[in-house]
Amino acid sequence: MSAKNAFYAQSGGVTAVINASACGVIETARRHPDRIAKVYAGRNGIIGALTEDLIDTSLESDEAIAALRYTPAGAFGSCRYKLKSLEANRREYERLIEVFKAHDIGYFFYNGGGDSADTCYKVSQLSAGLGYPVQAIHVPKTVDNDLPITDNCPGFGSVAKYIATSALEASYDVRSMAKTSTKVFILEVMGRHAGWIAAAGGLIEDQGIPVVILFPEIEFDQERFLAAVKSRVEQYGYCTVVVSEGAKYADGRFLAEQGTRDAFGHAQLGGAAPVVANMIKEGLGYKFHWAVADYLQRAARHLASKTDVEQAYAMGRAAVELALAGHNAVMPTVKRISHDPYAWEVGEAPLSEVANVEKFMPREFISEDGFGITPACKQYLIPLIQGEDYPPFERGLPKYVTLKNTPVERKLGAFEL
Amino acid sequence: MSAKNAFYAQSGGVTAVINASACGVIETARRHPDRIAKVYAGRNGIIGALTEDLIDTSLESDEAIAALRYTPAGAFGSCRYKLKSLEANRREYERLIEVFKAHDIGYFFYNGGGDSADTCYKVSQLSAGLGYPVQAIHVPKTVDNDLPITDNCPGFGSVAKYIATSALEASYDVRSMAKTSTKVFILEVMGRHAGWIAAAGGLIEDQGIPVVILFPEIEFDQERFLAAVKSRVEQYGYCTVVVSEGAKYADGRFLAEQGTRDAFGHAQLGGAAPVVANMIKEGLGYKFHWAVADYLQRAARHLASKTDVEQAYAMGRAAVELALAGHNAVMPTVKRISHDPYAWEVGEAPLSEVANVEKFMPREFISEDGFGITPACKQYLIPLIQGEDYPPFERGLPKYVTLKNTPVERKLGAFEL
Repeated sequence: MSAKNAFYAQSGGVTAVINASACGVIETARRHPDRIAKVYAGRNGIIGALTEDLIDTSLESDEAIAALRYTPAGAFGSCRYKLKSLEANRREYERLIEVFKAHDIGYFFYNGGGDSADTCYKVSQLSAGLGYPVQAIHVPKTVDNDLPITDNCPGFGSVAKYIATSALEASYDVRSMAKTSTKVFILEVMGRHAGWIAAAGGLIEDQGIPVVILFPEIEFDQERFLAAVKSRVEQYGYCTVVVSEGAKYADGRFLAEQGTRDAFGHAQLGGAAPVVANMIKEGLGYKFHWAVADYLQRAARHLASKTDVEQAYAMGRAAVELALAGHNAVMPTVKRISHDPYAWEVGEAPLSEVANVEKFMPREFISEDGFGITPACKQYLIPLIQGEDYPPFERGLPKYVTLKNTPVERKLGAFEL
Repeated sequence: MSAKNAFYAQSGGVTAVINASACGVIETARRHPDRIAKVYAGRNGIIGALTEDLIDTSLESDEAIAALRYTPAGAFGSCRYKLKSLEANRREYERLIEVFKAHDIGYFFYNGGGDSADTCYKVSQLSAGLGYPVQAIHVPKTVDNDLPITDNCPGFGSVAKYIATSALEASYDVRSMAKTSTKVFILEVMGRHAGWIAAAGGLIEDQGIPVVILFPEIEFDQERFLAAVKSRVEQYGYCTVVVSEGAKYADGRFLAEQGTRDAFGHAQLGGAAPVVANMIKEGLGYKFHWAVADYLQRAARHLASKTDVEQAYAMGRAAVELALAGHNAVMPTVKRISHDPYAWEVGEAPLSEVANVEKFMPREFISEDGFGITPACKQYLIPLIQGEDYPPFERGLPKYVTLKNTPVERKLGAFEL
């Protein structure tokens, strides 16, 4: 069996550790030159495959690839571009296969969330039908932690650690100021329709901090919310509010919708914090401060969870190992063996069960009043933020790598997206 | 000479390292029990002195005091409360002296910014006149870096490191996404009327990141700003914007004023980022993301600058040493000896020259087009963000200290603020 090339691409919103998965894929592939000749990365994700804009990762040094482990964001570029169904746009799938064929690509590693799992699944299903079977393995990634089957998603643990740490630090700040100034601090976090990231803010309750969490899973009720803030401020003198960008009213409207949608048709969120701050000012008269962490939270490699980095790397490595073992249309998963001490192993899930399924916070992870997390949720979250894994610093700043990203020579004609 | 007690209080917005100064004050005082009996801290700053709400720090263990070095925010509580002039409110000064007299306090250590230096100066001037002379030493603190004479202010270096690191990480993120999605990332930072914190964002230019900075010192011109963003997006594919909360139009209006003012009469700022984001969307049509770091930046002890922590501690220590040497109405300063290798020593400034003077970015630190920083500015900033000084972590989160803060028994009647 002659060695085939592999294709690797990053999809959707990037994370602090998606490059650690890339590192796992490339380093593992380099250990099997008899089976995998070169790893070609898609420049800007799947668009790189469609436009035949491939990056030859074999031209990167071992040191540069190793540095991916501690470099945030997508080293090859990512994209928000969802392939349509075969019926709606057969030419895109045919083009993919044409590119794979032209570059002798036998392995397709797609690193992303639920939408990408769907694309990966379709490629695996259709490539055989189109006469050029490709082994398609999905590498899980999403800060939103909303993929099914896997116990958690690489990318999430680091955001959770960042949000819990930031909420803790800001709570110390507002506690200092509350006597004469700010009484309520509001932190807006990502997570879209799933409240996992917001839940991480609840971890600081164990340090005696009063927190109110607004989950996307719980209908927002302004009166109940203001009462919850008021009771905490009256008891503690201050309060921290963690609001998910996906928090919404009973009628489905987001607290803050900017009115734009991304390429996947998802509403672009952001701006719930100032809305909540205004409610508190109008309704309770408390002085407030608010922060919107936005990209800072998902790019914060300087505060990554060691557990998360290790799992991200392991998912990349496992993807290659699954491919070499002949598996197809699967995704490696994190399987939890025990909570405390935390133990986990690599599992495997069929993509047919992963694609387009969103995993929300179970109701038993949210406290009865809807504003906090339960002991079961803490038991779930705490292992995921364990350990620090600092990047190297130089002249006061993290020393992240920027790859050469040398293009592979094109063999085909242009393709209009 | 019998030992007197000392009073220490934290004033104004807290920082990641103000407790390191407290640590310096208390640890140094503990080494001189023959001169300083106990350090009493004001609960919630100067209000604690006025209301005779004193904290007995002698009841805290050496370990707890040592932990202040790596704990952010104000361990004793801070306040935004500016004493009026003696003419306008003589009873407040008289009350302060009455409290100091009742508790045998001979040293007044006030840890804050320009307004606090003014209060500290007045106390030193007036205490003698009121028949109970107190040695008043100001300990510099402000993330805004706007105190005169001292080369830099403790608190600033850590915010600068956090902002530069966060801007770097988020820039890697937007660079990954720019092909099909976000092209401009906007980060709003603190700094009020001084652009020092915003300037720190310019440090990532040396890593090849296109940045546009909006300084409070430079009149905002929408047309020129949009042209600067456009040219960078066209050249690099993306752009990062760092906007100071104090950025304002030619007519003096802030880009985003929430209409509220704090106790010092300063406008409460926040919300420039969404305003700028909207301009970019309307004017250029680029997809954007924005973040408002707010308290996260000044509380981020997890990413403190080692230089900053050392200087904050040194200022606290020097304040006590100056007092023991008989000095009065002074502030220890950071004196820069050389840029590279960086060397500094402790200096001393008379409070008469510190109080109510704001130090802005010199024009020669801002690039000619007004959107970046010059090599001279980088030479100034780089030493201040050097070194990491991570706090200990436990179960995935920083292990910060919360003191017992046991009150000192009251000896006087109540006092209405």
